[in-house]
Amino acid sequence: MSLAALLDSLPVPIIQAPMVGASLDALTLAVSRAGGLGTYAIATLSPAEIGPAIAAVKAVTTAPFGVNLLMAPKAEPDAAVVDAALARLAPWYAALGAPLPAAPNQFAQDFDAQLAAVVEAAPPMASFTFSILTPAQVDALHAAGTFVVGTATTVAEARAWAAVGADGICAQGFEAGGHRGHFLAETEASLVGTMALVATIRAAVELPVIAAGGIMDGRGVAAALALGASAAQMGTAFLLADEAVTSKPWRRAAETAGDDPTRLTRAFTGRHARGLENRFMREMKGVQDEVPAYPVQNRLTQPLRAAAAAAEDPEMLSLWAGQAVSLARPGAAGGLMRRWWAEAQQAAADLSARTAGRGRY
Amino acid sequence: MSLAALLDSLPVPIIQAPMVGASLDALTLAVSRAGGLGTYAIATLSPAEIGPAIAAVKAVTTAPFGVNLLMAPKAEPDAAVVDAALARLAPWYAALGAPLPAAPNQFAQDFDAQLAAVVEAAPPMASFTFSILTPAQVDALHAAGTFVVGTATTVAEARAWAAVGADGICAQGFEAGGHRGHFLAETEASLVGTMALVATIRAAVELPVIAAGGIMDGRGVAAALALGASAAQMGTAFLLADEAVTSKPWRRAAETAGDDPTRLTRAFTGRHARGLENRFMREMKGVQDEVPAYPVQNRLTQPLRAAAAAAEDPEMLSLWAGQAVSLARPGAAGGLMRRWWAEAQQAAADLSARTAGRGRY
Repeated sequence: MSLAALLDSLPVPIIQAPMVGASLDALTLAVSRAGGLGTYAIATLSPAEIGPAIAAVKAVTTAPFGVNLLMAPKAEPDAAVVDAALARLAPWYAALGAPLPAAPNQFAQDFDAQLAAVVEAAPPMASFTFSILTPAQVDALHAAGTFVVGTATTVAEARAWAAVGADGICAQGFEAGGHRGHFLAETEASLVGTMALVATIRAAVELPVIAAGGIMDGRGVAAALALGASAAQMGTAFLLADEAVTSKPWRRAAETAGDDPTRLTRAFTGRHARGLENRFMREMKGVQDEVPAYPVQNRLTQPLRAAAAAAEDPEMLSLWAGQAVSLARPGAAGGLMRRWWAEAQQAAADLSARTAGRGRY
Repeated sequence: MSLAALLDSLPVPIIQAPMVGASLDALTLAVSRAGGLGTYAIATLSPAEIGPAIAAVKAVTTAPFGVNLLMAPKAEPDAAVVDAALARLAPWYAALGAPLPAAPNQFAQDFDAQLAAVVEAAPPMASFTFSILTPAQVDALHAAGTFVVGTATTVAEARAWAAVGADGICAQGFEAGGHRGHFLAETEASLVGTMALVATIRAAVELPVIAAGGIMDGRGVAAALALGASAAQMGTAFLLADEAVTSKPWRRAAETAGDDPTRLTRAFTGRHARGLENRFMREMKGVQDEVPAYPVQNRLTQPLRAAAAAAEDPEMLSLWAGQAVSLARPGAAGGLMRRWWAEAQQAAADLSARTAGRGRY
């Protein structure tokens, strides 16, 4: 079976986006059981935890699901860099009454070991973000029976994933919440709206394209399919789902977001990501290009963000969200998906009526 | 009749975007005659020229059409500002062997006089970009029988247009080529992808929404309609049309654009706009925030761009284009539209088949 056939066989062509901090196995399972394809965000799991985590999902469902890894570069920053970054964060830790952490020994999980654990556990699908696999790594996943999806923010990145043998492309549009997945060019040169990105990637590579960014309801799903995507990936749309583990202040911020509330920021993690603008983003904006690159800054702000979440303070916490977050709705994931699919069917019927009745020159 | 009813009555729900420098009345007429709605870019016409220009279109077609005005602020820059800006441009003029222009007396057409001429000429539709009309100005257009469309890049701008009585919103997504139309917040806070922008504006205002940005073919048209737009606005898709007046080097650059070729720049006009990246954009990037605001810089680079076009030098010319420009195709506008509409009908049929056959839980 091909990935295209798998996606085409889904009762509902909706993929739940991996969201570190907001989605765990419960959401993945709920989405896959409701006829979509859930993606388990396993980037923060240690290599030893990955096998059991994937086995646990496999044990309770025969539905297809995916896992996602973030390909963090190996970080061995100078002590002075870490000290300076911590010094800059000190007032924020102090404001929360949280202790400034010591310089960590490790800044992210070891990707090669994580990948080996994924190959061993053989999930139906695995997607990758922030960099690109080698052809040998893709082959290893294929030998395990795992489909490989590469995240691309540009046509060039989609071509690169096709060249290493990926089975499909997740086209991450400008609208998407959370981290940008670019890996070839700088951030600014890697910002393409979902509408343009899906159309141009589809024209450039022969692989199935998964549309991501700005898809919040059944109309969005229908639009993604009309564009030629094989499935619609939705993350922010699941942020308020019962099965999401979105923290209280993050959830409340998403529920009460005003018009046009998101911005890109590098301040929280050292890599550009989209979230609801808050005080940390505003006040760090002028120095965001100076913080150490991901994963270093990400690791150094983790205790700060955990403390802010515990204190229910939305101003010092990363509130990742996509551009149309105001359309997010609460409820059980399965119920949300049923509603979206009914909306998509209605949108398809409306579109058919509109196109059939026109075009008489 | 309402604007919604007018758009719904179009044989093909495609609006040709106004493109100063690339579109004139010939393209407007071709699109309207082919069942769409052409928009005549009259921003550079003097108030005295506007009446006859609109009358000439009315004389040869009963099909609906629109006109577009750019609401340039009145500019009275200090002589020192103009001199400094010209000094910065001097090497570019010199490279083309073109004389450095004297400081102009006028930097843009007088908007109030242009608007009065439009009211007098009473075109079926008028759209406005860069700012917002007063309720009295909207009333005057309505009294003349002209529908008013406001360009919005954010939900807040759409709400503002609804509040002054506009009949519809042109939702200009991040992907769109040419000038950004924001007028409430700064550029960075006014960049929303088409997918998210159409969905959120549609949820926020009761007016018909025209989707613009990244729509390059029939699949894009179908996607825009599925999202709930009343029509799809296409500009870059017409850049290579026979009836477009796109200059030779601009046309060639669009035809040969590689992957992911556009960027936003402020360097050419003092207002952010999207175009194919060239030497002027790259070399002026570091100082683009220092050039005088639109319309001053726009006026000061006009002779440079005209000289570059005449010399067929694509490196010193604004090559406005949207993000999916690689999908632009040559041909007569009517033929392009027929092809896009057939594609949209096919996309609708495919979508119906996909949604009808799924969702069995």
